Amino acid sequence: MTHEHIVKSFDEELKRFTQVIMRMGGLSERQLTRSVEALVRRDTELALSVIDDDEDIDKLEVELEDMAVKMIALRQPMANDLRAAVAVLKISSDLERIGDYAKNIAKRAVALNQLPALSSTVALRRMTQLAGMIINETLDAYSLQDSERALAAWERDREVDELYTSLFREHLTYMMEDPRNITTSTHIIFIAKNIERIGDHATNIAETVYFLATGSRIEGERPKKDKTSFTVVEPGDGPETAGSD
Amino acid sequence: MTHEHIVKSFDEELKRFTQVIMRMGGLSERQLTRSVEALVRRDTELALSVIDDDEDIDKLEVELEDMAVKMIALRQPMANDLRAAVAVLKISSDLERIGDYAKNIAKRAVALNQLPALSSTVALRRMTQLAGMIINETLDAYSLQDSERALAAWERDREVDELYTSLFREHLTYMMEDPRNITTSTHIIFIAKNIERIGDHATNIAETVYFLATGSRIEGERPKKDKTSFTVVEPGDGPETAGSD
Repeated sequence: MTHEHIVKSFDEELKRFTQVIMRMGGLSERQLTRSVEALVRRDTELALSVIDDDEDIDKLEVELEDMAVKMIALRQPMANDLRAAVAVLKISSDLERIGDYAKNIAKRAVALNQLPALSSTVALRRMTQLAGMIINETLDAYSLQDSERALAAWERDREVDELYTSLFREHLTYMMEDPRNITTSTHIIFIAKNIERIGDHATNIAETVYFLATGSRIEGERPKKDKTSFTVVEPGDGPETAGSD
Repeated sequence: MTHEHIVKSFDEELKRFTQVIMRMGGLSERQLTRSVEALVRRDTELALSVIDDDEDIDKLEVELEDMAVKMIALRQPMANDLRAAVAVLKISSDLERIGDYAKNIAKRAVALNQLPALSSTVALRRMTQLAGMIINETLDAYSLQDSERALAAWERDREVDELYTSLFREHLTYMMEDPRNITTSTHIIFIAKNIERIGDHATNIAETVYFLATGSRIEGERPKKDKTSFTVVEPGDGPETAGSD
């Protein structure tokens, strides 16, 4: 911390926070994309580098927390400005969790690279693209303070959940068809669950941005479409016949 | 907010926060215990009431955030007092997540009650007791500002992770033995993973308490003993022979 910061205006200081948040968000989204790439391309080296790089995101979270607390203490901001500082803490915590999930995907990619190749990675890739897009849209909404954009991103999480639900059921049936699929499918289900959780954290960020921009919370239930907690599939149910509930 | 609060001392106000945190923590721990009870006793009604009651925890989080932001704006606390207010935000966010995981366990209990009974729930109960104990120890550490106690709780999360890892491997082999176990075992693995995540959130709280009490962060790596991301089990590996990595 140099003298310079103390003489900066509050708005300038907030801009600095936004920059760090955007950098952290960019890193998190990149970690997600790289972890799934490592899986799809069976690239263990890439997976290991994703695991290593998670540290950079963790450090940014600690840095942002220190910056935010110092800023509040120095500036003693009121109402909206204080909300903006609290939002920084919340968003950086969500981004840190997104990084953790990407790291976990990378770990599972290392395990999966020791097993026979997957038949299909289309659904995982589609989930990843969607989740990545939601992260990017939410961060754009944050930097523009655009509540409509935050709301639109928030609503798209529903699609991630739907993809997860269908992938979950599909892999249950793969496991039932052939026990040699069990380890692979279990890891895939967890990877998909991680991406679904990443979508939830992006949704949290969208809620924070919406509140920051409008002063009120998003109305109504979260668009929660992950029904897998209630899923029951019996041997003999095919992926096509297993009805959704 | 009545006049009363404004004339209260800062310490009195912090005590009020601690009370709400303790209440929220008690509720979260109770939700965890009840969700696993619903599973073990195959009590769908209890599971549904856990799902309903999650709302109470969510409301407390929103309430605490509003209280903390108002308090910071009114009091403009410096350094340590500000850290204490930020800690309230962090801890309540971790407790809210613990509540979410308990709710998810309850949802899975509803699904599992439609399937044949589990052979054994000893490992799940043991994990639940441990995680519940860590939550309680961490909250005690918070209310007493006791860094040693926080550290001791933090270290015990290792045992939760170890139980999870062995349960994960065990259920992979159950699935391989008989495809009729697949849906049940998949849910059980997710339930165990939820308890493991609850342990992680309790660990986060312990870190926050330690930092609050000492001004420095816990040194060294988190006691991360969940090795399941790297686990590979092939058909034919028994639960006894499947070596840990």
